[in-house]
Amino acid sequence: MELLSAQMGDYMTTFEDFMKPYGLVSKIDAFGYLDYLKTHPEEGRKQGKVVLVTADTPLKASRGEGKTTTTIALIDALRARGVDAAAVLRQPSMGITAAGSKGGASGGGKASLAHPELVDWGLCGEMAAIENAQNLLVSFAEKAADEGLLDTILLPRVSEVPSRSLRQIAVDRGKSNRSERVVLTPTCELMQIVVLSRSMDEIAQRVAAMTAGTKDGKPVTFGSFVDLWRITNMLGGAVQPAYMTTQAGSPVYVHCGPFANVSLGIPSLVSVEMACALHDVVVVEAGYGADAGAQKWLDIAAREFGAAWPTAAVVVTRATTWRDDPALRWRYPFHINRLEGLGIATFPLVNLWEGEDGEIPDLRETAQQLGFRRPIIGNLFRDGGQVVSDQLNDLITALGVTADGVPAGSLDAESGAQTAQAQVVQDLQSHQGIDIVDQMRWIARSAYGVPAERVLEGPLFADSLAQARSLCQGEGLDLNDMVPVAVKSPATMTDNDNAPENERTVTLKKMEVHTGAGLVQVNLTTSLTTPMPKIV
Amino acid sequence: MELLSAQMGDYMTTFEDFMKPYGLVSKIDAFGYLDYLKTHPEEGRKQGKVVLVTADTPLKASRGEGKTTTTIALIDALRARGVDAAAVLRQPSMGITAAGSKGGASGGGKASLAHPELVDWGLCGEMAAIENAQNLLVSFAEKAADEGLLDTILLPRVSEVPSRSLRQIAVDRGKSNRSERVVLTPTCELMQIVVLSRSMDEIAQRVAAMTAGTKDGKPVTFGSFVDLWRITNMLGGAVQPAYMTTQAGSPVYVHCGPFANVSLGIPSLVSVEMACALHDVVVVEAGYGADAGAQKWLDIAAREFGAAWPTAAVVVTRATTWRDDPALRWRYPFHINRLEGLGIATFPLVNLWEGEDGEIPDLRETAQQLGFRRPIIGNLFRDGGQVVSDQLNDLITALGVTADGVPAGSLDAESGAQTAQAQVVQDLQSHQGIDIVDQMRWIARSAYGVPAERVLEGPLFADSLAQARSLCQGEGLDLNDMVPVAVKSPATMTDNDNAPENERTVTLKKMEVHTGAGLVQVNLTTSLTTPMPKIV
Repeated sequence: MELLSAQMGDYMTTFEDFMKPYGLVSKIDAFGYLDYLKTHPEEGRKQGKVVLVTADTPLKASRGEGKTTTTIALIDALRARGVDAAAVLRQPSMGITAAGSKGGASGGGKASLAHPELVDWGLCGEMAAIENAQNLLVSFAEKAADEGLLDTILLPRVSEVPSRSLRQIAVDRGKSNRSERVVLTPTCELMQIVVLSRSMDEIAQRVAAMTAGTKDGKPVTFGSFVDLWRITNMLGGAVQPAYMTTQAGSPVYVHCGPFANVSLGIPSLVSVEMACALHDVVVVEAGYGADAGAQKWLDIAAREFGAAWPTAAVVVTRATTWRDDPALRWRYPFHINRLEGLGIATFPLVNLWEGEDGEIPDLRETAQQLGFRRPIIGNLFRDGGQVVSDQLNDLITALGVTADGVPAGSLDAESGAQTAQAQVVQDLQSHQGIDIVDQMRWIARSAYGVPAERVLEGPLFADSLAQARSLCQGEGLDLNDMVPVAVKSPATMTDNDNAPENERTVTLKKMEVHTGAGLVQVNLTTSLTTPMPKIV
Repeated sequence: MELLSAQMGDYMTTFEDFMKPYGLVSKIDAFGYLDYLKTHPEEGRKQGKVVLVTADTPLKASRGEGKTTTTIALIDALRARGVDAAAVLRQPSMGITAAGSKGGASGGGKASLAHPELVDWGLCGEMAAIENAQNLLVSFAEKAADEGLLDTILLPRVSEVPSRSLRQIAVDRGKSNRSERVVLTPTCELMQIVVLSRSMDEIAQRVAAMTAGTKDGKPVTFGSFVDLWRITNMLGGAVQPAYMTTQAGSPVYVHCGPFANVSLGIPSLVSVEMACALHDVVVVEAGYGADAGAQKWLDIAAREFGAAWPTAAVVVTRATTWRDDPALRWRYPFHINRLEGLGIATFPLVNLWEGEDGEIPDLRETAQQLGFRRPIIGNLFRDGGQVVSDQLNDLITALGVTADGVPAGSLDAESGAQTAQAQVVQDLQSHQGIDIVDQMRWIARSAYGVPAERVLEGPLFADSLAQARSLCQGEGLDLNDMVPVAVKSPATMTDNDNAPENERTVTLKKMEVHTGAGLVQVNLTTSLTTPMPKIV
């Protein structure tokens, strides 16, 4: 803790009262700390600027571009330049890591967390607690069904461990043989609630508003039959972000929320708010590609739930992802230009692999031809933050922070960042109340480049829309007030990314309301039929 | 930690190197500490004596007699007398607590743990990690089945959250519709392995020896197709006991293993070994009644797995349990006399409820008539350890420890404890290799009072015995080398506890081998058909 204070400055004195060592990490009472800041406005706090780390759309879901590695390298490099930077990471899914379906998400090589094994192998049991709590809700729904309060159960059970055969199950075999499905814990509604909530009271209210099932066709929420304290007691540790460091000692907060393909894919809002109160620059990881993680940070977290609008973005790609598939080469510039157009100073970052050092001049030239800002390029695994440290002048300038070797107060005039701010204000107007299909059309246009006339509806969509509308009405809600969450393959933005721009379509396939989280999941393009992977 | 050292004496200096604060508790690298003691024989250590806290057979499974409350009151009282006593508790099942099926297991009133909410609501995620690890094994088995390495999967999935409808499920609905069952996490084979193992290597070996399923009728173990490090990595935190204190500050170690009705029902062996190295008296809780928890501590932990034989036992009852059902009144004296006959100084303890103080003279008289040692009686919830502190002279004398107010070196001559030790030596000879049905007959006689000729076999038993034998043979094992674990209702010892002694029978219903744990589960009497409760 003393080391921490020395690193992090004055604001740690109070903050430390809200931290407890937890083995090799510390856990933070983020709700308590943010509440303290609210009730003690005289207390000093920083107003950290958010740098969003997102990525090119990956060629395959299982192939990461290196967002976590980049995030870690960036804060190590910024701190080496004298900037008080910290990172906020999502907790990876242990089940997926343990199953060998994907490496961990703790960085790599010289750009790694200290104790990466902790973050890869379940951290402090946060996700397991969320799993148990959602499963307990299903058990209470089952009891309610036994008692005649429900005749269908809509909330799925969850499992952190992937298993193909749990996608579709029948429970109570030999008796009711009720059909159920099991979803992956990090994608479940309760995880979304923990990501979005700013207090335990808010969590309890949202759990109460979750739809348990229906009785005689009318929706029934959990608030009508569950003691909410049973659920919030289970979540006592899960709502606390973990404090860790990189191997170089830079501060990292880890909390909640992977899987931007089928859920939010962003860390908890409180972890970012807290980091912004403590640091000048907060690098936030949101994945997979910019069409998923960045879209969700901007359109859901920032616009609808009050999270910080990023001052800058870093869009990671591999040298190969960017260039080797001519039909998909449009995606990377699309992401960069989109974010830049929103007034976010957006930097390309090429994460080199072994043997690619020779490509740097070519990569720089391509970036220049495309009108990008000067790209940040390096083998982050091999060299860590050191290799990008002296490439950060433009980023530091865009952030308006002081750093070693950058003249104080210089501002990023050429980027148009300031003129674009006017546009941002308009973009930050909530979409709540706008017709939900129009909201989806807006996402298709802005995040995937597909205009309204090419947003199609699949054969089941109209029915699922009507059902979603009816479910909301039954609970006194308006479907148009729900915030849409796109559910799609992480490797595609449209129905046909390989087609020419004017032929690409987006198909809305079905929707499902999460009344507790205040979200509506909308499946589109080549969405997964289920978020429960198998072991590969 | 400084407080801890002051409380616990010299041996803490080294021990503290193996502890880490973990929020409001500490976690202990017990494997590391015990290994250190082995490799540093010059290092001082205590040779603590074990006091087993067990209970009368409860009238209902959901009605605890107060074992945890007693355990806590006892160590508080012993420490008040100057004895260095500590407790080892099992971690309760959060799912059961959260579901409201049973109160927590963290003591009550003045005989409570500090921070009981932690132990009741998932502690540090230990059980959740065991759940994930066993479920991951099932997922790997499923993958092996997809690849043709298995045609049946025998290991059940687990859930800490109870759910009636998970007792029998069909997975891969609409395709293979494979029948499965889900068992409660604390009862699963992997939990048994963590309870019994003394190193991570032993855990890995035992996981490798777990039966995944069969291929062409031949058993296949997990060692043949799973990377064991994936499982042991998941268990990194789960193998570490938690250090807590009572509200009075007495040391308590909490680790693993509730549910003596369907599994072991004892805390991890390493947590008890570690406590014995650190304290003069270690009070170990094993439940439910003596026919379950004590039977399993003595016959499984001590005799077959090298755990400490208890020097003394305390058998908890309520005033009502003991006396109010005339047909069941035989059970309490049976337990006391059985343990006393094994050379264990056995003390009745009557845990009074509000309004029962007036019964003390009657209770003492009954105890005397039954030839018991002087009973320990008090309202432990209301009064805590203080109410029994001055009733512990006989126990302290039996333990041969020094305490305030007891002459040093006085020994418990009248109890016959020493002459009975000869018998104990014989009882401690392993039963491995003896015919497994004879081993069950021995348990029925010694723990339930039913002789061999009244141990019956149910209609399915012969088949399940043959299958178990064949499974073992297929893995190069001998069924007779497996240690039997009785699976039965916690509220009955025989098929008909209400019948006269010479009519009581025990029926062996079926068996199931846990080749990794080295155990064979034997269902008998009114065993549960499934260890997956429903929410009540």
